[in-house]
Amino acid sequence: MNGAGARLERDLAPGLVRRVWVEHLRPAVDGGRHPVKRVVGDRVEVEADILVDGHDLLAAVVLYRPAATTDWREAALERGANDVWRGGFTVDSVEPWEFTVEAWVDEFASWRDELSKKHAAGQELASELLEGAELVAAAAERADARDRDWLRRTADALAGDAPQDARVADALSAVLAEVVARWPDRSLATRFEPPIPVDVERERARFGAWYELFPRSLGPSPEVSGTFRDAADTLGYVADMGFDVVYLPPIHPIGRTNRKGANNVLGAGPNDPGSPWAIGAAEGGHTAVHPDLGTLEDFDALVAEARRRGLEIALDIAFQCSPDHPWVRDHPEWFRQRPDGTIKYAENPPKKYQDIHALDFTCSAWRSLWRELRDVMLFWAEREVRIFRVDNPHTKPIRFWRWAIAEVRSRYPDVVFLSEAFTRPKMMHALAKVGFSQSYTYFTWRNTKRELTDYVTELARPPVRDFMRPNFFVNTPDILPEVLQIGGRPAFVCRLVLAATLAASYGVYSGFELLEDEALPNSEEYRDSEKYQLRPRDWGRPDSLRELIAAVNAIRRDNPALHSNDGLRFLPVDNGQLLFYARTTPELDNVILVVVNLDPHHLHHGFVEVPIEDFGLGPGEPYQVHDLLGGGRYLWQGRRNYVRLDPASSPAQVYRLRRRLRTERNFDYFM
Amino acid sequence: MNGAGARLERDLAPGLVRRVWVEHLRPAVDGGRHPVKRVVGDRVEVEADILVDGHDLLAAVVLYRPAATTDWREAALERGANDVWRGGFTVDSVEPWEFTVEAWVDEFASWRDELSKKHAAGQELASELLEGAELVAAAAERADARDRDWLRRTADALAGDAPQDARVADALSAVLAEVVARWPDRSLATRFEPPIPVDVERERARFGAWYELFPRSLGPSPEVSGTFRDAADTLGYVADMGFDVVYLPPIHPIGRTNRKGANNVLGAGPNDPGSPWAIGAAEGGHTAVHPDLGTLEDFDALVAEARRRGLEIALDIAFQCSPDHPWVRDHPEWFRQRPDGTIKYAENPPKKYQDIHALDFTCSAWRSLWRELRDVMLFWAEREVRIFRVDNPHTKPIRFWRWAIAEVRSRYPDVVFLSEAFTRPKMMHALAKVGFSQSYTYFTWRNTKRELTDYVTELARPPVRDFMRPNFFVNTPDILPEVLQIGGRPAFVCRLVLAATLAASYGVYSGFELLEDEALPNSEEYRDSEKYQLRPRDWGRPDSLRELIAAVNAIRRDNPALHSNDGLRFLPVDNGQLLFYARTTPELDNVILVVVNLDPHHLHHGFVEVPIEDFGLGPGEPYQVHDLLGGGRYLWQGRRNYVRLDPASSPAQVYRLRRRLRTERNFDYFM
Repeated sequence: MNGAGARLERDLAPGLVRRVWVEHLRPAVDGGRHPVKRVVGDRVEVEADILVDGHDLLAAVVLYRPAATTDWREAALERGANDVWRGGFTVDSVEPWEFTVEAWVDEFASWRDELSKKHAAGQELASELLEGAELVAAAAERADARDRDWLRRTADALAGDAPQDARVADALSAVLAEVVARWPDRSLATRFEPPIPVDVERERARFGAWYELFPRSLGPSPEVSGTFRDAADTLGYVADMGFDVVYLPPIHPIGRTNRKGANNVLGAGPNDPGSPWAIGAAEGGHTAVHPDLGTLEDFDALVAEARRRGLEIALDIAFQCSPDHPWVRDHPEWFRQRPDGTIKYAENPPKKYQDIHALDFTCSAWRSLWRELRDVMLFWAEREVRIFRVDNPHTKPIRFWRWAIAEVRSRYPDVVFLSEAFTRPKMMHALAKVGFSQSYTYFTWRNTKRELTDYVTELARPPVRDFMRPNFFVNTPDILPEVLQIGGRPAFVCRLVLAATLAASYGVYSGFELLEDEALPNSEEYRDSEKYQLRPRDWGRPDSLRELIAAVNAIRRDNPALHSNDGLRFLPVDNGQLLFYARTTPELDNVILVVVNLDPHHLHHGFVEVPIEDFGLGPGEPYQVHDLLGGGRYLWQGRRNYVRLDPASSPAQVYRLRRRLRTERNFDYFM
Repeated sequence: MNGAGARLERDLAPGLVRRVWVEHLRPAVDGGRHPVKRVVGDRVEVEADILVDGHDLLAAVVLYRPAATTDWREAALERGANDVWRGGFTVDSVEPWEFTVEAWVDEFASWRDELSKKHAAGQELASELLEGAELVAAAAERADARDRDWLRRTADALAGDAPQDARVADALSAVLAEVVARWPDRSLATRFEPPIPVDVERERARFGAWYELFPRSLGPSPEVSGTFRDAADTLGYVADMGFDVVYLPPIHPIGRTNRKGANNVLGAGPNDPGSPWAIGAAEGGHTAVHPDLGTLEDFDALVAEARRRGLEIALDIAFQCSPDHPWVRDHPEWFRQRPDGTIKYAENPPKKYQDIHALDFTCSAWRSLWRELRDVMLFWAEREVRIFRVDNPHTKPIRFWRWAIAEVRSRYPDVVFLSEAFTRPKMMHALAKVGFSQSYTYFTWRNTKRELTDYVTELARPPVRDFMRPNFFVNTPDILPEVLQIGGRPAFVCRLVLAATLAASYGVYSGFELLEDEALPNSEEYRDSEKYQLRPRDWGRPDSLRELIAAVNAIRRDNPALHSNDGLRFLPVDNGQLLFYARTTPELDNVILVVVNLDPHHLHHGFVEVPIEDFGLGPGEPYQVHDLLGGGRYLWQGRRNYVRLDPASSPAQVYRLRRRLRTERNFDYFM
């Protein structure tokens, strides 16, 4: 409270006389410093603590609007226990929104409540009825023509000479309460300030199945690059597996200076294609395509074909340059120069990345650099790319991302940003808070029951759930997790089902379905990594997981409980190698129960505990669980039920709970 | 983010280029919406999450100042795990303070760190040393004359032609790091905005033992009112018990209209004195004293005598009026009028309080009313009363208190306000947030181990500990708790020790020491309550707890661990009727262990668990616990130790833990 504000308060500013006190409006991220994240169509459930001195009754509403508009819409809040008021609203457009609450003393309701208590106590009420008449007459003055006359007549009647009991009955009538409530006196209402911002994105910001693909590996041999046309031809394969997003590593020209050879060795041979992340060559930089992949027109055709098949292309945004990038020549001021005038390559001492120059985001020419980088994203958005997977955002300034994402969204509100920040938790959170739609996570390294339960619970609850949306990748070109290296097919199935049912967004990097599990020694790096060489694959291999993946993705689409990260609950099971959890819609009209055997080597069985009372099932009421993966249907009853998972045949089961509709003769029907 | 701000950001405002990100500065109440509470001399321990992109090292300081001043003082923060930085500062004056943090990239430390890693890897460092020379030369330009020349020479040496190893040794020297760190480049520092407010009060706002006394009961008989002079004569009795504050119920003239008789009956007799809370009569209102008590000069003498004895007088601020209060005649606009022109009395339907008129804080003349009420408090502050116990603040608007407390404190910063809000938790919290120094609590109704543990833990931890300070009263004129009605002397001792050692402020209403336990049936109201009649007492009764109270208050004064509400920890004991807890100073130089038998009827014994490792004691190391109440000294060892509490002799034991200083021949010394 500094100078001016304090003085105004000393001077008894008009607002001081507002009696209602509103606190702790939620959801809110850091008290409203950053937006809450939601997707279009979501209902935002709102709570606030609302108080008043004394015994008066209150009324309260949530006010909400797209932030670019001026008129508030409103919806009533209901009072719950402990002075918490609850309500909500639906966000129906992709843009920034905001909300607040307003509350006021409901003079008429307070009077009505007192009247009813005094009446019950048999007190004399002449004066009280006159007070009520005044309140109703005042409401009449605020009312429209339709209600005004009726309210005036009612006020007269309350003050009239009918017997007290008759007038009390009128005063307490539900219709009077309803009509007066339409015309409240909100002149002394309290509004929570400032409003809480809500960032509303399209559904794909939260829910989607991703498939990562190197188009250059789709050629006829390890020596010949695949093209955008080959990628277009492969879209059918990806669509058949039920994915939503096809994510391509950088598609730009690749530098030749200090190019890395196979398995990341220094000194590439003449035919080594180099890392796609060493962006830029004589042919161009971040807005050019690699000539081996085709032309920009070929790329446009790929994007169009993807849309035709219900897929979207996601591009990789990696703001770094090979030594051959045109910017190195045209804008040396954007790079850090060594005292000898050469440009520094990227380092993480003592490691050196000789094929990459980092950009200097705080160089004196930062404004032109930032604009150029924004324009790179606008260039691809203009070509109908509306999903960006951003490489290593944690090595660029947080404020750059806040600015750049806002800039892109102001023109293309439907752009989704995935943060590839495998870094410390608070940096991941900060990037999410400034605008990234979703984030890679530590899922890749969470394997045990305890690790998975703790981590996923943290993600699914406030505060994290309100600003960071997970995307659970089972593998990436940089990460072949240890469990896949040693666990064989059961581990692949287990991790797939976990990722697909624990997070609304999940991803697979190609080769996963072919059970690729060869790593460099003591490393999570793939042997003969696709990052440095072409790797054509035989998609049709009989041991492929493609059909299982298709089944899992179909289950995800069919079951709304899996479209959100809310409604997740880990449930008890008496075996430490079995993980059991429920995913539910708020209305409980879709209940999915998942049990996973985390041990790829041994059969495990045990008793799971189903919280039947929370699902509206009585203790003696049988219910059906339908294994959507294996097809089996089981009749369960009560809380404790038996499960048995043999990793060789079914490392994971995904049940849909079906209630019995009616029993008729000897047939049971379940919905 | 609205209009202007958003446009500025689009325009790439200079602040965008700041790379450091500061979040979640704490302590903070509701993210800084309300002040954190501390007392003068406290060290405010500060934490913030501080991040930067990439691998650079950071430096950070906490900035702090009295809010009325302009120059920040600063102290370094240290980096801890998980990007949390910690530090603190001491508040050394009674007034509003504020703090924030500022952090910046430490270019030299980052460079030095990289250099050391590259040097260890045996890399060629010519270019790196030139970079370092530039950084040191830049520091020289920021330095004062004393450091400038030395830095310039060092820069020249780093860029010179000495062997690389020699120059690296210079570059990595501790003295260079220290001198450069004196002259940081903070031009791109990030500061957390806005600063967090801290309300700094005097120690009595947190720590004090209160004694409540009706002066009118100090007369020679139940028919003759005691006076301020009698009260002055009684101060020795109170001081001998070791109390700090003597709190007087309202001392003003009492109304005659609808005066309540003994035991709160309607229709007082001519000699019934009435409730002191029915304030105001022909003799005057809130700034007058009851003629039976004496004169204002007598009151002044009482205040002076109290100060002389190391006591303070606290007055009751009860903003309500008897029907005979001068305001009712002079300012009818301050009261709610009924349609017939009469003034409403206070009600909580169907209950009626005919001897009291509530003030209408939102009447159209609210400004003159609020100023008058403020002036009442200023009147008594002017007469050297600097503690107010505020009656039922939750029935007056929250914003009134925020304004009025700020007004009083702006003139008398040392005024302490105790909130008598026995109401819903969020209202109690709101009153604390807007300025009450301390609050009555639910302690009176928390009896079992679970109840006490849960409630006191909630009070002792953030968020509550940062804005609400408890005052644990064992009884009040309104509350004779059930446990005292049925538990006899052991219950009185148990509750006294709990209150005095679980909260830094606690209070006793007179008669407690005399074990008064007679209530109205099915009620917590005292029979023949002093609220409605005079109750002279025999202070010298042999069964009085006065000596025990004196001992408890002496223990409180002697042990700094009991001066604060921090450093409280409930500890395990294998008996559900025994409560065991530790109170410690931050430096652990004062460790108090308390064990209380919550069952007034039976002996209980059990094994307590002492967290010796947290107190710096080895598993085999004996230590002494000295029962400061009973006088016994026990030699304990290890975590598990035996206790036995017979309610007839020692319902509670208060140990001071004494470490063994040294062992010499056969003598052990403990400090």
